[in-house]
Formats: sequence, C-alpha cells, structure tokens
Amino acid sequence: METRVTIKEIARHAGVGTTTVSRVLNNHPYVSDDKRRRVEEAIAALHYRPSQTARHLRGGSSGLLGFLTDDVATTPYAVDIIRGAQDVAWAHHMVLLVADSGGNTHFAEAAVDVFRERAVEGIVYAAMYHRPVQLPAGLDGLPTVLANCFLEDRSAPSVVPDEFDGGYHATTAAINAGHQRIGFINLWEENKAATPPFPAIYGRLRGYRQALQDHDIPYDGSLAHFSNQTPQSNYRHTQELMALPQPPTAIFCGNDKIAMNCYSALAELGLRVPQDVAVIGYDNIAHIAEGLLPTLTTMQLPHYEMGKWAVQYLIENRGRTMEPLQVALPCPLVARESV
Amino acid sequence: METRVTIKEIARHAGVGTTTVSRVLNNHPYVSDDKRRRVEEAIAALHYRPSQTARHLRGGSSGLLGFLTDDVATTPYAVDIIRGAQDVAWAHHMVLLVADSGGNTHFAEAAVDVFRERAVEGIVYAAMYHRPVQLPAGLDGLPTVLANCFLEDRSAPSVVPDEFDGGYHATTAAINAGHQRIGFINLWEENKAATPPFPAIYGRLRGYRQALQDHDIPYDGSLAHFSNQTPQSNYRHTQELMALPQPPTAIFCGNDKIAMNCYSALAELGLRVPQDVAVIGYDNIAHIAEGLLPTLTTMQLPHYEMGKWAVQYLIENRGRTMEPLQVALPCPLVARESV
Repeated sequence: METRVTIKEIARHAGVGTTTVSRVLNNHPYVSDDKRRRVEEAIAALHYRPSQTARHLRGGSSGLLGFLTDDVATTPYAVDIIRGAQDVAWAHHMVLLVADSGGNTHFAEAAVDVFRERAVEGIVYAAMYHRPVQLPAGLDGLPTVLANCFLEDRSAPSVVPDEFDGGYHATTAAINAGHQRIGFINLWEENKAATPPFPAIYGRLRGYRQALQDHDIPYDGSLAHFSNQTPQSNYRHTQELMALPQPPTAIFCGNDKIAMNCYSALAELGLRVPQDVAVIGYDNIAHIAEGLLPTLTTMQLPHYEMGKWAVQYLIENRGRTMEPLQVALPCPLVARESV
Repeated sequence: METRVTIKEIARHAGVGTTTVSRVLNNHPYVSDDKRRRVEEAIAALHYRPSQTARHLRGGSSGLLGFLTDDVATTPYAVDIIRGAQDVAWAHHMVLLVADSGGNTHFAEAAVDVFRERAVEGIVYAAMYHRPVQLPAGLDGLPTVLANCFLEDRSAPSVVPDEFDGGYHATTAAINAGHQRIGFINLWEENKAATPPFPAIYGRLRGYRQALQDHDIPYDGSLAHFSNQTPQSNYRHTQELMALPQPPTAIFCGNDKIAMNCYSALAELGLRVPQDVAVIGYDNIAHIAEGLLPTLTTMQLPHYEMGKWAVQYLIENRGRTMEPLQVALPCPLVARESV
C-alpha cells in the first residue's frame, strides 16, 4: 500500500480541527464557508483522496455523482458534457456513474433508483439538444442540476447555451467581413403549436436580427428561411436564397449539417466558398467542420463548459439548498476558412 | 420502501440453496456452471436487484465495472461502445463507472487507482480507433477486456472490428451493383516504419483484393490510393482517380469524411453520385452518412456490439481466469443511396 495522507495532516495544513475536516468530507452542513474552503484547499494541496470504503462504512458521503442523459448515442458530439462533468468531479475526488436512458422513461427511473441505492450526492441530468424536459420520477430531495435543458417552470438550476449570443456573433462575424445581405437557414420546428418554443430557433433568430439592427442593416424576411433539416430541404433553401433578385453574399446556417448541404448547392451553382458566398455553421461538429473544403467557420456549443458548470454548482452547494438559477453560456465563434 | 425480491425466493426459483445464491452474488469461484446459470436466470426472471449497501458491508462484490477510454471526445461516434457496455451491465444489475483519460497516462493510472478503491469487478478498456495499445499501470489481477484495441502480444482478451470483412463486403457491394473498375481511397499511416500496422488499413486492403479475386477482377494498383485524410488530400485523390485513362465507376472510401470530400470533387467534375460514380464510405457516422446528398452507403463499425461483447465476456468469466482470445466482429453494409 502507498502511504496515504491522513485527516490529521489535512487538519494541520488547514489550521482546523480533525472534526472540521471530517465534517467537510462527510458533507456536513455545519461548517463555515471559510473553514470549508481552507479544508478543500488543503485536500487539493496534499493530493488527499479519501478512502471510499472507510467513508462508506462510517456512513459518510459516497463520493459518487450520477450522470443521466437521454440520448448521447444520437447526438454523439454532446459527450463533451460528460467530459466536462468528469473533469470537475475528479478534481474533487468524486466519480461519475453514467447512465444513458436512450430516451426511455422506464430506464431513466430505474437509473434514479440505482443512483439512490449507491447514495449519489447529486445528479446531472443532461439533454443532448437544448430544450425543456421533464425529470424522471424519484429525484425528490436529491440535488439535481440540468445541463443543456431546463424545466418549464425553472424550478431546478440549469445551464444552457446562450442561443441569442451565438446568433448575434455569427451574424456580426459576417458583417465584420463586409457582408450586408446575410441569409439565414434556421432550424425548423415541426409542431410549432404543439411544443414549447425551442430556444435554439428563436434565440438565434433574435440574435441575428439584433446584430443587423446594431449595424443599421434592415431586416429582410425573404432572407430568413427555416429548413426541416433533411439534406433535400437544406439544399433547396440554399437554392432559393441564391435565386432571390438580390441574393445573399453570406449564409448563416442553423447547424453544420445544413452548412454541408449549403456547400453542395453552392458548388452546383458554380459558386465558391468564401469568395462568392461566405458560410457560417453552428455546433462545431469536428467531423464536418474540419472535414469540409474549405473548412467551416462555425459557432461552438459550450458542451464541455455546461458539464463543468453543472458539477461545480452541485459541489459548491453541497449540503445547502440550491438556488434554481438558469445560466446561459456563450457560443463562441470558431473561425476557419468559410468566411 | 418497495418490496424486494429476497435471496430465498431466488434460491427457490433456481432450485438451489441460499448459500449458492449468495456465492453467485458474491462472485465466489466454487459454484458449478450449471448452478450459476440457473441462479442468473432466476435473478433475471424475478427482476432482483441486490442491495449494494448490504453486499458491500458483508464484503461481497461491488456490482461496479470500470469503463476506461482514451479519447471519446475526439471520436464521439464511438460512444456507442459505452452504450453497449452499459446495456449488458444493467441487465446484470451492474453499474458503469466511466472515466475518459483524454489520452493522459497519468489520469488513466489515477482512474485505475480509483476503480480499485471502488472494488470494481472488472474493467473495459476502450480505444476510440482500432489499434494496439499499452494498458495503464496497476491493472494486474483485475479482469480486463479490451474493446476496439488489443495488446501486441494478445495477452488480454479483446474485441475488435473485422476490417477484412468490411473491406471485402464494401467491394463486393460495388461488384454486385455491376462495377468492375473500383477505386479505393484508403487511410494513410504517417510513420509506416515507426508504428505497428493499423488493422483498418491493411485489413480492408486485403478484403478489397480478396473480393476482386473472388470475382475474377484483376487487382490494379493504380486504383488503390492512400490519403493522409486532410480534406485537400481526399479531394486530390478523387481527382487523380477520375483522371486515370480508365477511371473507376465506383470509389470505396476508407471513411465517411473521405467520402464527403469525394462527393465534392465529383460534383466539381460534373459527375453525379451514383449515376456516374458510386461511392461507399466506412464508419457510418450518422451526421455525415445521413446528411450527404445522396445519402451515403457505408460500412458500420460495430461499436455497440464491441461494448456488449466486452462486458458479456467479463461477466461470463467472473471468478475465473479469462482466455485471452481476440474476437473480430463484422462491419455490415448500411445501404443508402450512393451505390
């Protein structure tokens, strides 16, 4: 066995008693913020990793966090949420239990059940695209932070992409490159009436309009299209934009797949990217954005940062009631060759 | 509390004594295969989920498996390995602890350390592309199965894609569609001398040649190219193939990204897919294969199945010495519109 740092050494390093160290380790509420911070710093400085078996036997905290997702498999690039969550958890000597429900409610509830049996200290519930969700049953009393999704009534804390910010900066990037006629092939919602508004669609559209307004460019509705995201539809909307009496010189696409089809449609029209038409995507799916010729300038969804934020917020609020705030993180521009 | 199935009920259902049930649950080696199977079937039939706390306290098995990956983040579609592993683990009432090392050896070793502290019953070590790997230190004596990778000396069990099978069936699909001149834009290895051969490159090339031979089509080296996988290189190799005195009527691409650039190069030459040139990809990255116009016929990497196999093999061999066999799973054709 390697030599382990003891609680006594942490107490000495932090200038507190061993009882305080023990309380911090066991997530006990009656510790002042200052002492908690000093103990946490000492733990980090001494690379202390609590023995989970010992903690478990004395009824302490489990050091486990549950990570529940709905459909990583269908939106694989969103796994960066897991990576972000993991990196913060490990820095705090905690481990992630990961369960992917594949959108199956029964599985999600079973996962919550198993997480409870394992005495997880909190749960990150992550959706693979930004939308309102309903949490599975059985989470009452278990600290839960939502990542890339939110409750309609905002009664639990959540972290989401700032869609307005992304739409605003995508449009601004085109304007800064000298464009005035900027097309927008937005995502399209099948049942606008039946479902709550998806923030990606309306947030980005608001950002697009605001950026135009801030640069004294009048909004022209004929430039703002909605595609149902089939390759055919994406292609057709590009053709329609380019067939306008005053066609755009730049096209902002609601995701990288739309941009991929936009490239094809422009190529068939004999138009070069970016010399004839600039193209901006959204999502930064590496396989597409780095694979296209020319490579695609696009907006980064903050998956990694949302995962980090969610776990950070859980850990900061250990043993306290969490404020149900909603935080929106920026979607920065990833500049490549298409603008 | 819900009513729980007891060990007594399982024993009655399986027709064995409670001691045998307890031994199976605690991964004790002295249980016959037949009794172990009967107990496992009873556990499944009765939807029994052992209380982890009780098992832990009596020194039993942890019900945990460690899943260690090198770089999910950079090859996100390979997360299906995690999903396959999870689905089998959950069917056996086991939970996955997931750690993504990002290729950092220090992190990988720390993860093994944490997995040991948590008393995981086994480890799946997954690489995100098929290649030989070295395992992190500290795994001695811990049952480990490799997925999508293998040890050079084959001293641990592993499950990998059958690259020969994929190359063979991709080529056969083109031949069956009436093609005799079939180009191949293979993956390219930067340091052929310095690194061990990557099975994807040489296995698929062998499959390509065997399929030609089985259909009495002579191998023509001028049709077999290697691309360094930059968009420019993929594009240029397509142009070179189409500039041959006898250009191919079908092109087999070493991955879907190559196929994406191949489409662009063909479009610029005024050639239609599949009417003028058929295209086949490899990997089945949904975002690309379903997003291209026309949609891409490609070969499925068996990520989900490899994850399943690895955990299945760990569970089947609980408490025994595992045979270090290497299993290669087929890469089936996903037929779409490009052939």
